[in-house]
Amino acid sequence: MAQKPSIPKGTRDFSPLEMSRRNYIFDTIRSVFRLYGYRQIETPSMEQMSTLMGKYGEEGDKLLFRIQNSGEKAGEAPEKGLRYDLTVPFARYVVQHREELQFPFRRYQIQPVWRADRPQKGRYREFYQCDVDVVGTDSLVCETELIKMVEEVYSRFGIRVSMHLNNRKILAGIAEVIGEEDKITDITTAIDKLDKIGADNVNKELLERGLSREAVDRLQPILRLEGSNEQKLQQIAETLNQSETGMKGVEEMREVLRLYESTRTAADNNAFRLEIDLTLARGLNYYTGAIFEVKALDVQMGSITGGGRYDNLTGIFGMPGVSGVGISFGADRIYDVLTELNLYPAYTLETTAVLFATFGEKEREYAMQWADSLRRQGINTEVYPDCSKMKKQMSYADANGIEYAAIVGGNEMETNTVMLKNMQTGEQQQVSLEMLTQTLIQK
Amino acid sequence: MAQKPSIPKGTRDFSPLEMSRRNYIFDTIRSVFRLYGYRQIETPSMEQMSTLMGKYGEEGDKLLFRIQNSGEKAGEAPEKGLRYDLTVPFARYVVQHREELQFPFRRYQIQPVWRADRPQKGRYREFYQCDVDVVGTDSLVCETELIKMVEEVYSRFGIRVSMHLNNRKILAGIAEVIGEEDKITDITTAIDKLDKIGADNVNKELLERGLSREAVDRLQPILRLEGSNEQKLQQIAETLNQSETGMKGVEEMREVLRLYESTRTAADNNAFRLEIDLTLARGLNYYTGAIFEVKALDVQMGSITGGGRYDNLTGIFGMPGVSGVGISFGADRIYDVLTELNLYPAYTLETTAVLFATFGEKEREYAMQWADSLRRQGINTEVYPDCSKMKKQMSYADANGIEYAAIVGGNEMETNTVMLKNMQTGEQQQVSLEMLTQTLIQK
Repeated sequence: MAQKPSIPKGTRDFSPLEMSRRNYIFDTIRSVFRLYGYRQIETPSMEQMSTLMGKYGEEGDKLLFRIQNSGEKAGEAPEKGLRYDLTVPFARYVVQHREELQFPFRRYQIQPVWRADRPQKGRYREFYQCDVDVVGTDSLVCETELIKMVEEVYSRFGIRVSMHLNNRKILAGIAEVIGEEDKITDITTAIDKLDKIGADNVNKELLERGLSREAVDRLQPILRLEGSNEQKLQQIAETLNQSETGMKGVEEMREVLRLYESTRTAADNNAFRLEIDLTLARGLNYYTGAIFEVKALDVQMGSITGGGRYDNLTGIFGMPGVSGVGISFGADRIYDVLTELNLYPAYTLETTAVLFATFGEKEREYAMQWADSLRRQGINTEVYPDCSKMKKQMSYADANGIEYAAIVGGNEMETNTVMLKNMQTGEQQQVSLEMLTQTLIQK
Repeated sequence: MAQKPSIPKGTRDFSPLEMSRRNYIFDTIRSVFRLYGYRQIETPSMEQMSTLMGKYGEEGDKLLFRIQNSGEKAGEAPEKGLRYDLTVPFARYVVQHREELQFPFRRYQIQPVWRADRPQKGRYREFYQCDVDVVGTDSLVCETELIKMVEEVYSRFGIRVSMHLNNRKILAGIAEVIGEEDKITDITTAIDKLDKIGADNVNKELLERGLSREAVDRLQPILRLEGSNEQKLQQIAETLNQSETGMKGVEEMREVLRLYESTRTAADNNAFRLEIDLTLARGLNYYTGAIFEVKALDVQMGSITGGGRYDNLTGIFGMPGVSGVGISFGADRIYDVLTELNLYPAYTLETTAVLFATFGEKEREYAMQWADSLRRQGINTEVYPDCSKMKKQMSYADANGIEYAAIVGGNEMETNTVMLKNMQTGEQQQVSLEMLTQTLIQK
């Protein structure tokens, strides 16, 4: 047992500093969710295997963690698994609780998910997702609100982002007009990689996937679309005017952009870019309308937020015809972006306002009474529990980022004061309880 | 697939109403933890099986949930398991991160734990624990602060409680003076049941466990101890004056009570009772000093908080000599107590301040702009996304506990107003954006 203990690969411990930063991220996202009327739910960590299997493709099935009771026989097929995302459990929740829910149902959910992926930099086997969805309405007001929520979240973080917008109906229309309607999945899978592998390789892949040379050629102007969103829309509309589905997608996108613009004010800054991106495909098959993806402008990193509209997510659980739209914020990647850009506000460090450091037992009791009085004013206060050397007590305050030390010796007890030390400047001042309280409350 | 989906037995979905109540509980507990300078950590849901096995007794081992990757062969022994409590992962954390930590280390941790217990009323297979511990000091200041934290938490909840206090050294001393030093575990296991099975059955069990009739007789006055804490201490000291360990326990208890009393003020009410209870044993073997347990006075329910001091918890991971003390709040039982006593403050319902209900598309766009303006003031606002019948929109506001509806028709658009309806009283009033903002900000 003398061997140093460890945790399973791909998992993490979070220190107090990391937790205060993570809480800052979750609190910021949550407060924007609530600003738009979304309500929190939680679902169990474990779901029936039948709920999870077959929802994430063959690859996904292999990445599920299965759970066995210790009491169960080895080899017995486990009936439970850890959730893989928050979307499928949400669909299951909606179907299971349909009688209690009032539609449209706006929900958010912030919980960990588990994937037996090969661990690597930035990819973990346990990580948090922050999902927000509204189901039971196909109103484009919802897409518009989600865009505004993304803008608000990143504006609060101070992260400059570009939000890419596409529509599955436009992609379907493109497949239609280039004469490869049945190859829509191959097309989206290939062009999804444009960013990573470049146009030549995408075209090669399209040919390998069985598209005709002519179809690939006809796809090129669409992939290379440039100009303002309005100009892009114009060109897409011209290309797709023979496809009913495609034109429906164009109309949806135009309406979302119009609604979004109608609530923008001069005060809004340029830290947020919303741009049509026909190369955005997103892997998941359940999307049927708008799709979104967000990238940070100042950091090299994959998508930090993504989502879209789905018309039949609850259909897999026997409740068809419930349209919804949602997005998911990737807390771990946002953490990395904030760290790389050094954007954490100073106040995010959840710390103690003052540490009482004392020279002996009597002084410590005196400090406990002062501490009690400060806490009754809501001031986060610690008393160093041992009568250790003053140097050790000061280094404790330093290590924990505590701004003030209130030092108590015999002299302070006699004069009913403490020696208040600013740990950053080293300044010291003898103060009364009233002055101490005032100093700390004003922080 | 048409079968209604379900979740594994012993697990739960939490609705928005339940979540807002649970958040109220967690936030209250967390803010008291922070008031005393405790810092949050989180550990992974899964730990190595070697970390978990053998820490909870034979029964505990059987209740561990084991995890397999889907890729692993069936029958292969899983090396990972879901955490069973927050104490063992915390001990593992302290040992693993000893170089980075500053002792004394005050930490809190609020996370779910999993036990493959037979599910029954009030007992779940996934539930949250709220743990607070300080390690690296044996100062009794810590016990005192934990008692005060318990008092503060339940005072904020408005729950009247009694906190039972005992000390493992006193229990050891009792075993010693009745001549049954080696039967300390049998004695504590038996008298732990006094509440449930009564004195006669406890005595019967003690005899069955091999105690002499004389020893059982000598135990009786100690079990039936009455009077004030001071009177009890007096009697225990007399009984134990031949046991060094026992007297050490008496001294510790006396000091903790004295320190606690020294910070009480006249303002403190009588909703909190702190009482010596020699029949309190607590099952876990790692306790070595003070032990605590808290019960609600006005509800029939088991312990809602408990803990104690341990001198060698990290020893199992190869780091001996680290004393610590901690307590754990049972969020689920607190939830049940608050529900039964109807003690949730009205504001705990995390809801939207106003719903815009509109008569058509133009009105909805107008509402979106108003909503945007309110949100910029931090007011939680929803726009009903569809142009449904007004009755449906009103019933949505009702079902979601939204206090105000802002109704928009052609007349309102012409006069640049909304019709503000108080959903509880039914009162309606035509208001400007400024008046609306003022009304909602003052809430």
